[in-house]
Amino acid sequence: MPDVTEDDLVASIRRILSGDLPGVVLGPGDDAALVEMGDRLGILTTDMLVEGIDFEPGMFSARDLGYRAIAVNVSDVAAMAGSPRFALVALGMPKETDLAWVVELFGGLREAADEYATAVVGGDLSRASEITISVTVTGEAPQGRAVTRSGARPGDRVVVTGSLGAAAGGLIVARSRRHDAGTEWGRELLAALSRPVARVGEGQTLGQFGATAMIDVSDGLFLDLKRLCVASARGVLIRQRDVPIHPALRELTRVQPDVDPFGLATEGGEDFELIATLPEDRVGPAAATMRERFGTPLTDIGEILESPALAMTGSDGEEHPLEPRGWDHFA
Amino acid sequence: MPDVTEDDLVASIRRILSGDLPGVVLGPGDDAALVEMGDRLGILTTDMLVEGIDFEPGMFSARDLGYRAIAVNVSDVAAMAGSPRFALVALGMPKETDLAWVVELFGGLREAADEYATAVVGGDLSRASEITISVTVTGEAPQGRAVTRSGARPGDRVVVTGSLGAAAGGLIVARSRRHDAGTEWGRELLAALSRPVARVGEGQTLGQFGATAMIDVSDGLFLDLKRLCVASARGVLIRQRDVPIHPALRELTRVQPDVDPFGLATEGGEDFELIATLPEDRVGPAAATMRERFGTPLTDIGEILESPALAMTGSDGEEHPLEPRGWDHFA
Repeated sequence: MPDVTEDDLVASIRRILSGDLPGVVLGPGDDAALVEMGDRLGILTTDMLVEGIDFEPGMFSARDLGYRAIAVNVSDVAAMAGSPRFALVALGMPKETDLAWVVELFGGLREAADEYATAVVGGDLSRASEITISVTVTGEAPQGRAVTRSGARPGDRVVVTGSLGAAAGGLIVARSRRHDAGTEWGRELLAALSRPVARVGEGQTLGQFGATAMIDVSDGLFLDLKRLCVASARGVLIRQRDVPIHPALRELTRVQPDVDPFGLATEGGEDFELIATLPEDRVGPAAATMRERFGTPLTDIGEILESPALAMTGSDGEEHPLEPRGWDHFA
Repeated sequence: MPDVTEDDLVASIRRILSGDLPGVVLGPGDDAALVEMGDRLGILTTDMLVEGIDFEPGMFSARDLGYRAIAVNVSDVAAMAGSPRFALVALGMPKETDLAWVVELFGGLREAADEYATAVVGGDLSRASEITISVTVTGEAPQGRAVTRSGARPGDRVVVTGSLGAAAGGLIVARSRRHDAGTEWGRELLAALSRPVARVGEGQTLGQFGATAMIDVSDGLFLDLKRLCVASARGVLIRQRDVPIHPALRELTRVQPDVDPFGLATEGGEDFELIATLPEDRVGPAAATMRERFGTPLTDIGEILESPALAMTGSDGEEHPLEPRGWDHFA
């Protein structure tokens, strides 16, 4: 598929699936869909992980892979300010796959599901050329309380939970022939990659404090921020110095000087932190509550603009246009 | 995975995922899961179709493949006597996949979704070695009205909707170098394969008439009937002469005399007819209502037994033990 980005393809598909359909509050295109489910708002999301594409063969243990498959879907529910409830797992695997591997994978799925108070209620098994895990998570939120990507307003502050770049740093450690995986910071980076944390409580807290838009960082801060801005038909001005870079990346640059922590933090992806937009006066209270409840930092990194341009105030004090790059399955 | 059948693997996984989890009415192992969703009973099911495994490359048009992917999931909701509501689609595809192909696929997904009053509300795209389509469908039923596999009682009649073997016959036509695809019966068999019908209204009707257990025929009449019997801890006695064989298979045997219509009807699978168990006095009224509402025949093919053996009264009038064979991903 030459010259077609993933976002282009998604846009084509959205047109095919569009229409005023009964019970659909929000169709394709956000972190998750919103649907009427009895007296609650239902949240539906699905994510396919393919060996060799979404993860490298042998990089994850079966248990970590299972854990991760649940966590990345739960993160989409978190990005709607919802509560995950139920999960379904479809697994494609080569003929030679070991039963013990499958048991470990489901052990990891169960572990993450328990961590997020989610029940794995069903699934499907198939053969495939490579390991293919397709997880669907349903969640819920009280009516009117889900936070989509599209509500950002000019003057809103842009905040991000935790810190960024650790998963991309973990990928470098995993691929490295050095013994960084044996260091404390190396283990921390690897864990960010293999055991991502879905910010469920943080997402709900941001919703309670009036977040106007929210998205999780799956493909990179800049690319996901661009998606939020496009959905909201607004622009953004980010301050480079305020982007929270994961501290362990400093250790990594000490042994691998060609590593660019800011690049990893803004284009690396897979951190599953939440980007949200908030009215300015809610940032302080939201940050205080989040630190108190979860010990998670909340950092103000910029402002939503009226005009739909993406820009960054660099370390030189000058404004630079942002050209988001990040993970694209079809680039 | 030597010496492990799909059912063995599913049993191992069920043990890992078991437990008394909040909101879960029925976990893995049936046609679909049942969960609490506000004031309704939620039905969740997922199914992965992998090219080269679940379908042959080039056998289906993109549109038929999309249609089929929705229909087979909707059939699982039908087998619970539920109403499908929402669908999610995860698609893995090789790099060289054409945009037009993807658009046609989603056109087919949309067509089937519209047919079953189901909204495709989200999805995920990934690269993969082969076309991989993972669909999740959510449905609902009034509290206490879903029909599982496990409620069959001794003396219940075993009924099946429509007729069997057409999809397996369609596969023979599709693979054949003869020109059977140009005949009326050839087209009928091919359509059964490429455009399966999910028996949604029929499933609800069977539920209304007091069906005690129900399953859809995805892997073959005998294998799926065995699953129903195992789940209900009962046996069954089938009458060979009453198994409804699709009439177009007679035409097929005329040009391909080695084809065994009874074998296709009982072991072919992919017909997506419903097998249900009903109290004897409800069979007549259910059949009359089903014919009136949908024009679908309902055939009494045997009886549920106390002891957990599977048997068939053959054309010779003798009882033979049944050794169910059918589609197994891992056989």
